Amino acid sequence: MSRTNRRALTHPVTEEIDLLDVLHALSDPTRMTIVRTLAAEPERACGTFPVDVAPSTLSHHFKVLRESGLIRQREEVNRRMSMLRADDLQARFPGLLATVLAAWDRTAGPVSP
Amino acid sequence: MSRTNRRALTHPVTEEIDLLDVLHALSDPTRMTIVRTLAAEPERACGTFPVDVAPSTLSHHFKVLRESGLIRQREEVNRRMSMLRADDLQARFPGLLATVLAAWDRTAGPVSP
Repeated sequence: MSRTNRRALTHPVTEEIDLLDVLHALSDPTRMTIVRTLAAEPERACGTFPVDVAPSTLSHHFKVLRESGLIRQREEVNRRMSMLRADDLQARFPGLLATVLAAWDRTAGPVSP
Repeated sequence: MSRTNRRALTHPVTEEIDLLDVLHALSDPTRMTIVRTLAAEPERACGTFPVDVAPSTLSHHFKVLRESGLIRQREEVNRRMSMLRADDLQARFPGLLATVLAAWDRTAGPVSP
């Protein structure tokens, strides 16, 4: 098992996912783009999203998404992988994520990863 | 017609309501409570909502809600009335407001005005 000096990645359990945290996390264009991208595939490495922000800013956005319960992250040897917690969100807030993404596609157009 | 020294109340037209602005407006507990309260009645005077914040803070929250397109406000002689733009939101983002309010009721419980 590899050792790492990164802090452990914390995720809220499904029952503690907070609606206002989720709405706040989704209210930013970079974070919405990350969520929209992840909705189309099972998992993706953090540096490969179609967003144009500094690495430290991107790291903050991933933290907001993770702590809100929208995404789950795990470490691989040389990279951090992210996946959307679609099933957890559907269990907690039925229809919410799908409705928000449909609204986003309606106005911003779907992403082309 | 009465004269007033208050600035004119501006509202985005339906086609310009921005999803991220709406999500941001809904991500605050006071603003969510205002929206939830307005979902249950046609119109309400600003000082009568079941929220416990200073008048200047409340005024800010109403401004965020109005400028996001979530509510419409109009002046009466001695008070400002607010109403939810439910039809406009349904036209712009079908199902969004209902889904968010259902999620809020699911976790916070419906308000009792």
